Amino acid sequence: MIVVGERINGQFPLVSKAIDARDEKTIQGMALEQISAGADVLDVNTGPGRDDGPEAMAWLVKTIQDAVDIRLAIDSPGLKVQQAGLTACKRTPLINSTTAEEKRMEKFFPLALEHNAEIVCLTINEKGIPNSVDGRTETAMLLLTNAMDKGIPPENLYLDPVVLPITAAQDQCPVVCDAITAFRALNTPPPKTIVGLSNVSSGAEERNLLNRTYLGMLLGRGLDAAIVDPLDLELVKELKAAEVLLNHKLYAHSFLRA
Amino acid sequence: MIVVGERINGQFPLVSKAIDARDEKTIQGMALEQISAGADVLDVNTGPGRDDGPEAMAWLVKTIQDAVDIRLAIDSPGLKVQQAGLTACKRTPLINSTTAEEKRMEKFFPLALEHNAEIVCLTINEKGIPNSVDGRTETAMLLLTNAMDKGIPPENLYLDPVVLPITAAQDQCPVVCDAITAFRALNTPPPKTIVGLSNVSSGAEERNLLNRTYLGMLLGRGLDAAIVDPLDLELVKELKAAEVLLNHKLYAHSFLRA
Repeated sequence: MIVVGERINGQFPLVSKAIDARDEKTIQGMALEQISAGADVLDVNTGPGRDDGPEAMAWLVKTIQDAVDIRLAIDSPGLKVQQAGLTACKRTPLINSTTAEEKRMEKFFPLALEHNAEIVCLTINEKGIPNSVDGRTETAMLLLTNAMDKGIPPENLYLDPVVLPITAAQDQCPVVCDAITAFRALNTPPPKTIVGLSNVSSGAEERNLLNRTYLGMLLGRGLDAAIVDPLDLELVKELKAAEVLLNHKLYAHSFLRA
Repeated sequence: MIVVGERINGQFPLVSKAIDARDEKTIQGMALEQISAGADVLDVNTGPGRDDGPEAMAWLVKTIQDAVDIRLAIDSPGLKVQQAGLTACKRTPLINSTTAEEKRMEKFFPLALEHNAEIVCLTINEKGIPNSVDGRTETAMLLLTNAMDKGIPPENLYLDPVVLPITAAQDQCPVVCDAITAFRALNTPPPKTIVGLSNVSSGAEERNLLNRTYLGMLLGRGLDAAIVDPLDLELVKELKAAEVLLNHKLYAHSFLRA
């Protein structure tokens, strides 16, 4: 599975302050720490309510790349912030994210094409997040076909069924599991899937337990990537166990240390 | 999920000695301990190479029932040991187990009918354990139809895809996951499924981690019951987390304490 590290996000005060102060060491430390814990990609988000969004994003991308050679996910709904981030990326970027809303697909798919980027596609349409597996799957199909019409190869898409908090929408937790299975049946080879995992436990107690249990279930359905906290050691252990149980990595007694 | 506690098994020296000494306290303590940890059913196995099998089984069943009011799974391949256990059971017993081998179905299905028992059906045929999802599913269908021909209602069957050790047959771990999905598609309502979980980690390091990760994956596929160690606290926590994530039990902040 592709681990996208979620920690460089301006919603966390430590990150927000580091961006304000243009404090390279703090950001680079967080990048290194996530990579050594197993992150394959780092999500980069400047946080909400920032006037210097594009400049802050370009600085974050440059700062991280000055320290490490890693793929980045540019996490912003803003077109200018995305452009600033994508332009600064040295390696293939991941756009996080578009929805299936017409006006967003019209902006973000051409952007993905221009930068040869991969892109997270949230199954959200003009009416919101469909409640049912079928509704989410129709929306996923719309995203797939729209992207392919614009010349984006399907392997550059990550379909995201939108994980919701168990505290607010418990019935949606199994729907997301079934949606992963349904999305994978849309094409051959199966389209790639991703989730923003931590949202499932937002507002809940036992957050880490819920996160890692849900991750195991979703991996069991064929999930390809997840935006997670790679510093959650128990989560990473469960991920490694899942990878050997799914026969994606060869089992060895030392599988946890691999 | 139905938790079948695996600990009263003569393959463990403590249990074997307690049977030899007809030590009621040890057995009753193990029963109580598993029930307070969350077991819904207790597996009862006299262990291998015992001359007094039927008598030992009857004693075990009576001893447990003298202390607790719980359903029991009579775990023996021997017809006489099964008969002794089933006859002693006060509540609906679970026969553990038959295979799809003709000579076993001819013995064990009539026994299940006679005792109005539920029965674990291992997808093993005359040639062994089929390697593929399709092979296991054909064998499951054979078990279902043979049982129904003999008058056993399908809701009394637990189809078991046979978990194998990751150390010996890693490729079979995902096959068992897919088999659960395939078995559930065989009938409406879906046939019930069960696994003997701990076998997945036999001979492995990080046994508990592998067990609980695999359990989460299988529950995510719709598994109904598992034979497990209910004293594995992390496993039970993950099970409770899975039950709220699958919307089988209502989420509350106190879900772990429920």
